Amino acid sequence: MDTNQFREAAHAAIEDIIEYYNTLPSRQVVSSVSPGYLAPQLPTTAPTTGEPWSAIQPDIDRLIMPGLTHWQHPNFMAFFPANASFPGIVGEMYSSAFTAAAFNWLCSPAITELETVMLDWVAQMLGLPECFLSKGEGGGVIQGTASEVIATVMVAARERALGRQAKGLEGKEAEDRIDACRGKMVALGSEQAHSSTQKGAIIAGTKFRTVSTKREDNYAMKGAEVKRVLEECKANGLIPYYITVSLGTTGTCAVDEFDAIAEVLKDWPDVWVHVDAAYAGSALVLPEYQHLTKSFVHFDSFNVNMHKWMLTNFDCSCMYVKKRSDLTTALSITPSYLRNAFSDSGLVTDYRDWQIPLGRRFRALKVWFVLRSYGISGIQAHIRGHIRLGEIFGSLIKTRPDVFEILTGPVFALTVFTVLPRRKAGGGTRGDLPDSSHERYLNDFTPDASGQALMEANAVTQKMYERVNEKGEIYITSSVIGGVYAIRVVSGSPAAEEKYIRRAFEILVETAEEVLGEPGNAAKD
Amino acid sequence: MDTNQFREAAHAAIEDIIEYYNTLPSRQVVSSVSPGYLAPQLPTTAPTTGEPWSAIQPDIDRLIMPGLTHWQHPNFMAFFPANASFPGIVGEMYSSAFTAAAFNWLCSPAITELETVMLDWVAQMLGLPECFLSKGEGGGVIQGTASEVIATVMVAARERALGRQAKGLEGKEAEDRIDACRGKMVALGSEQAHSSTQKGAIIAGTKFRTVSTKREDNYAMKGAEVKRVLEECKANGLIPYYITVSLGTTGTCAVDEFDAIAEVLKDWPDVWVHVDAAYAGSALVLPEYQHLTKSFVHFDSFNVNMHKWMLTNFDCSCMYVKKRSDLTTALSITPSYLRNAFSDSGLVTDYRDWQIPLGRRFRALKVWFVLRSYGISGIQAHIRGHIRLGEIFGSLIKTRPDVFEILTGPVFALTVFTVLPRRKAGGGTRGDLPDSSHERYLNDFTPDASGQALMEANAVTQKMYERVNEKGEIYITSSVIGGVYAIRVVSGSPAAEEKYIRRAFEILVETAEEVLGEPGNAAKD
Repeated sequence: MDTNQFREAAHAAIEDIIEYYNTLPSRQVVSSVSPGYLAPQLPTTAPTTGEPWSAIQPDIDRLIMPGLTHWQHPNFMAFFPANASFPGIVGEMYSSAFTAAAFNWLCSPAITELETVMLDWVAQMLGLPECFLSKGEGGGVIQGTASEVIATVMVAARERALGRQAKGLEGKEAEDRIDACRGKMVALGSEQAHSSTQKGAIIAGTKFRTVSTKREDNYAMKGAEVKRVLEECKANGLIPYYITVSLGTTGTCAVDEFDAIAEVLKDWPDVWVHVDAAYAGSALVLPEYQHLTKSFVHFDSFNVNMHKWMLTNFDCSCMYVKKRSDLTTALSITPSYLRNAFSDSGLVTDYRDWQIPLGRRFRALKVWFVLRSYGISGIQAHIRGHIRLGEIFGSLIKTRPDVFEILTGPVFALTVFTVLPRRKAGGGTRGDLPDSSHERYLNDFTPDASGQALMEANAVTQKMYERVNEKGEIYITSSVIGGVYAIRVVSGSPAAEEKYIRRAFEILVETAEEVLGEPGNAAKD
Repeated sequence: MDTNQFREAAHAAIEDIIEYYNTLPSRQVVSSVSPGYLAPQLPTTAPTTGEPWSAIQPDIDRLIMPGLTHWQHPNFMAFFPANASFPGIVGEMYSSAFTAAAFNWLCSPAITELETVMLDWVAQMLGLPECFLSKGEGGGVIQGTASEVIATVMVAARERALGRQAKGLEGKEAEDRIDACRGKMVALGSEQAHSSTQKGAIIAGTKFRTVSTKREDNYAMKGAEVKRVLEECKANGLIPYYITVSLGTTGTCAVDEFDAIAEVLKDWPDVWVHVDAAYAGSALVLPEYQHLTKSFVHFDSFNVNMHKWMLTNFDCSCMYVKKRSDLTTALSITPSYLRNAFSDSGLVTDYRDWQIPLGRRFRALKVWFVLRSYGISGIQAHIRGHIRLGEIFGSLIKTRPDVFEILTGPVFALTVFTVLPRRKAGGGTRGDLPDSSHERYLNDFTPDASGQALMEANAVTQKMYERVNEKGEIYITSSVIGGVYAIRVVSGSPAAEEKYIRRAFEILVETAEEVLGEPGNAAKD
């Protein structure tokens, strides 16, 4: 492909992309292909001789498009969003053109330096404490995903804690002490924390203990419970080294009790505290949420995924540490072929020592384009718009207490709710139920509940959830929260609009009515 | 940025990219900015209101371009290459437009299925044994970097070995046994293996032991030495669980003694063997190298970075495992919000269980475009071209035995050499040296050498290396190999041509003559 052919192919790609975005609402949001759809349509080996772009391009529409689930679709209301934007796409174009492995400063100083400045811009925009800016002992780095960030800080946390266990010892004695501790290290996280903490513990080769949460606390992790689990670990001879606190859990967007947890952890200085704000952290761009960052000065690290809710194409997870030497002490290895005068001088940042992979992409470019194209006010408007849609959706759900029960929210644009089974007698609406029945249902919202009412509610909720996704007009996710099978709806696509969320509500009501009307789905008494 | 503005910005970006590639040879290959050049030229915070693309675009040329080190430049002869290509760039355009987190099959079936087919294409193209294809128990996955791959397989290897240590035990007994073993786990790698193995051992929380190599073996790791280190580890109460073998080490592109190592490891079935072919693995596209894969059937995993030498923009590291359940057993966690009927059915691949991060980019698209655009023959021609340039460069170096001494190569396009200090007496050429002096110099090529001749050679080689990079016309790297300070030259950019490698040789000769002619740089006797 020479430059002229590239121009032609790239122009054609741009038209494809524009057409794709223009026609998104008319496409089915979730792919309906069957497993294994693609291989039979492709040759079993790479072609021997090259093909022109004109032979390749039609295959995107023919073979790839049917297999895409459209995360930018206005009816994508599942998981959390993965916002793309045109400035982000342009950023990736330049980034791929400037391809470099960029594992140290000299490998392309612009890649490192723009990243440092952009991460400072983002930290200030989100109201993070000054300790996370690059001018002091901390700073930010762009990683691929929140799970990669969590694995990285857990390794650094483990090494820091092990180093402290061996404090005062040297050589063989220190090594023996560390070896003896390895099997005792334990990471903590709320049972509502994202699964990446549990996976991070596996990667780091340590144990993992959950801190339980309650519905009456809105599934937030409380200081007292953290304290209890820490003490229990210690009593069992374990060494706690790490805890994830969440600003917006995956299930319900719960915000953990930061102040109280910080207070408890004053007695546990070897425990690294990481704030996982992967999704909801973007809301910190709004001044009304910035009070949430007040306690972060007591914590060790923080991350927010700009690729979720901040208009920056995947991948772009912004990670901050209060003390960068905590990372580099654990992760820095400098073989001779990576040495250079600039790195040796200590005047430059080598981000490879802040992460698991060696090489890195030029991700800061898309951040720069996004922040400049939208401005802070544009990003605020984007987030506020979704929060407003969440409020509207929550209000709609509340108009049908005969069918739906809100479990949590709307918060950070996420509403979590269940379907209420109907009582056989009269087949009436929720209004017909005696208050005591409703109370009994709520009381069953406990992790180990096995009550009849809860089982029935779970069954109809799951049925409705599956039916909605089968219909395929909207895409939503379910989650089991404290034993409750619940539906999560979050409309955070850049294409989201009120009409789509209202239509989603209609579909949910229709489908719930269908399911509830079917024999066998009514409450048993 | 609406669709019309996007079209305009993207067209402008395409012209920038074409202009960039057209003018590459006239740019200085390594950036000459000083540390901290960028921040003073940028605002300290993100703008409040958005800016048009016309305000942003000129800043790429003004602020970013001076800070780029041009890895696509024909005079980039440092590290290993990081090939970009136009089809790869077009792939990234579509990939960013289709932004999805894609952590499981249903999140976009095309992303998973194209990846599986492409990895089978690549495996067959490289002559990998059938056990690495997806049709059996193995298969491939695209990760970001070789270091990420190595960390991933080391975690899987550690878990597999720990599981076997606890074989026959259950519950608390099994856990106690595993806890007791954690501090004893040890990974091995040649002292010439890439530093990512050492870093992987840190991430996995285990010890690391090197296997030494010798110049007379061309720095290849030998079976006998692997056996010796394994036995030594065992004698010290350690549990070996992993070894990296290299097809093309970073320093010298050495190829480890696969057959003999496979033979030794028959007695160590719990040791996971990973083949790191990050760079040189691309040469397997040439039939004349495919005999190297014969022993791989005895090994557990393999990786090659298509983003190094195979025309696929960074990042694209292809990892293969012989038994995918070894990975998924260690890394799979499925919380309720990630469950779906397809994944539960076991009919689909969820690549999140093959890697550390949860979310993933649509990297297979660029692989598809690259393989189809070039065809196997085009990629073979690309690799052969560079190998030929390496041969030419090696021959040129050999024309000046008075100045240069080849340490290894040319092999896989890489030549590693040193500068020979001149004797004061007569100030003559290499030809004037008595043979015994040359022999003495070679005999000093041992890891712990401290001989005068070696120290002198190291000093002039380093001086010349630094001088060449300061001049800035070409960019090369140095490495210390078994105590020898050596220069690595590898011309693997897609823009590489014979005239550039010849000019590089001229620069090297000129600079060596300069350095050797300076007082204080002659040999002492």
